[in-house]
Amino acid sequence: MSTVDTELARLSVNQMTVRRLGLPELTDACARSGVPGVGLWREPVRSYGVEATAKLVRDAGLTVTTLCRGGFLTAAEAGPRAAALADNRRAIEEAAALGTQVLVLVSGGLPPGSQDLPAARERVADALAELGPYAREHGVRLAVEPLHPMYASDRCVVSTLTQALDLAERFPADQVGVVVDTYHVWWDDRAPRQIARAGAAGRLHAFQLADWTTPLPEGALNGRGQLGDGAIDLRAWRRHVDAAGYTGPIEVELFNEKLWARDGREVLAETVERFRTHVVG
Amino acid sequence: MSTVDTELARLSVNQMTVRRLGLPELTDACARSGVPGVGLWREPVRSYGVEATAKLVRDAGLTVTTLCRGGFLTAAEAGPRAAALADNRRAIEEAAALGTQVLVLVSGGLPPGSQDLPAARERVADALAELGPYAREHGVRLAVEPLHPMYASDRCVVSTLTQALDLAERFPADQVGVVVDTYHVWWDDRAPRQIARAGAAGRLHAFQLADWTTPLPEGALNGRGQLGDGAIDLRAWRRHVDAAGYTGPIEVELFNEKLWARDGREVLAETVERFRTHVVG
Repeated sequence: MSTVDTELARLSVNQMTVRRLGLPELTDACARSGVPGVGLWREPVRSYGVEATAKLVRDAGLTVTTLCRGGFLTAAEAGPRAAALADNRRAIEEAAALGTQVLVLVSGGLPPGSQDLPAARERVADALAELGPYAREHGVRLAVEPLHPMYASDRCVVSTLTQALDLAERFPADQVGVVVDTYHVWWDDRAPRQIARAGAAGRLHAFQLADWTTPLPEGALNGRGQLGDGAIDLRAWRRHVDAAGYTGPIEVELFNEKLWARDGREVLAETVERFRTHVVG
Repeated sequence: MSTVDTELARLSVNQMTVRRLGLPELTDACARSGVPGVGLWREPVRSYGVEATAKLVRDAGLTVTTLCRGGFLTAAEAGPRAAALADNRRAIEEAAALGTQVLVLVSGGLPPGSQDLPAARERVADALAELGPYAREHGVRLAVEPLHPMYASDRCVVSTLTQALDLAERFPADQVGVVVDTYHVWWDDRAPRQIARAGAAGRLHAFQLADWTTPLPEGALNGRGQLGDGAIDLRAWRRHVDAAGYTGPIEVELFNEKLWARDGREVLAETVERFRTHVVG
């Protein structure tokens, strides 16, 4: 169904960007727009059915570029920790069923009352040691996503690409790698060199785009800017991952209340246009 | 007027923490509470009068630990750039008149439409080269404050202590150093080593405290947590600066709408108590 358009050959649209579109609408809209890839989230996929989603995507001729998300691996107590590991095994199985090789991991924040970031990061490493072999058995790679430092306490204790790679490199590259998302790393003058490090090690498992706009909304979660609306030189970051040898999908993942208030197909069309203008070339 | 209390000997309260208190109320409350230091802001000081403020503080037996703030040095065009430099020279003069050796610099964000962080950082360096000798003539040290990366686009292109020191070290230590504020650096696993680097170089010019609490408010500016309310191990950071040889004031600077809604003297008393519980010892 999809048209041939070399500019869009690597474009993937994460379903959170157009979250008002249900899965059938999303896959239909992507196919009609020439968008060859979609990034999916576990909750809507499970609501629709994992197998049914896989068929939908396949029938539309689309590729699932990532499944978001596993992780939240920082619980200190045995019960919550076991529950998190079990949930991540299910996420690995779902990724395999959807035909994507990349499970994005958001590591998790500090447990309630804790102020110990290094210990929380170490528990992430322990969990990766348990999950890595299971992922490999399923043909899935765990992609540790460093999140912006503003999420360090409540969402992700892995705040920089350097930390994510330090974690990943304790494990084989076909088990654990990293995600580079411009929204999270754009401020970091060390990130370009870390992208090269990730590429050289075969650990650059996904590349995501969002722009940085201010003011941040309350909670700082849903203010990711449409491509071209903000402070990030997206093309420069695309060139960094190009230079690192990355040839995979480029996924647009925008959490943005204002975009979500608009018609999903209109946002998709805008995203495609912005991708042509601000990322390609 | 102030009581002798060794636990509080290094405590300074930045006036923004209790911004509802006018300067006479602030200095009176600090003296009565055994708080020996105050950090001041240019705007209220200029409203009250620089010389009048200096006399007020002196008469209360207090020390001005920092003047906040100079900076905003990233303008690319000649006119705004000259205006910023002139304003910073005035800030240096005001710091000298107030008897503080430390002028805190918030470097400034990206100019409108720009996406070039490295160039903006370089313009900060250019400005430091112009301002450093003028500061030294006045017995004032410029203290570059790295701000949390969430402010990189609109407030401060210097996001890490590493960057701040890389900037500072281009100049003599009696001209340019850094501020360590827990709110801005707590997430950064490289910061402890950078604190040691700053101390060894004689560039650790100020140490400020605020706790990290979530959710962040809209704009992410005025949600700095009261000591002990958040995710930061404040005592651990105090020990890092201790180990770096820092023996200067420890200044509590809280931008917090909820604290500002309360009685300033009550907030001051609470801050003193939190300092004893979470910082001292």
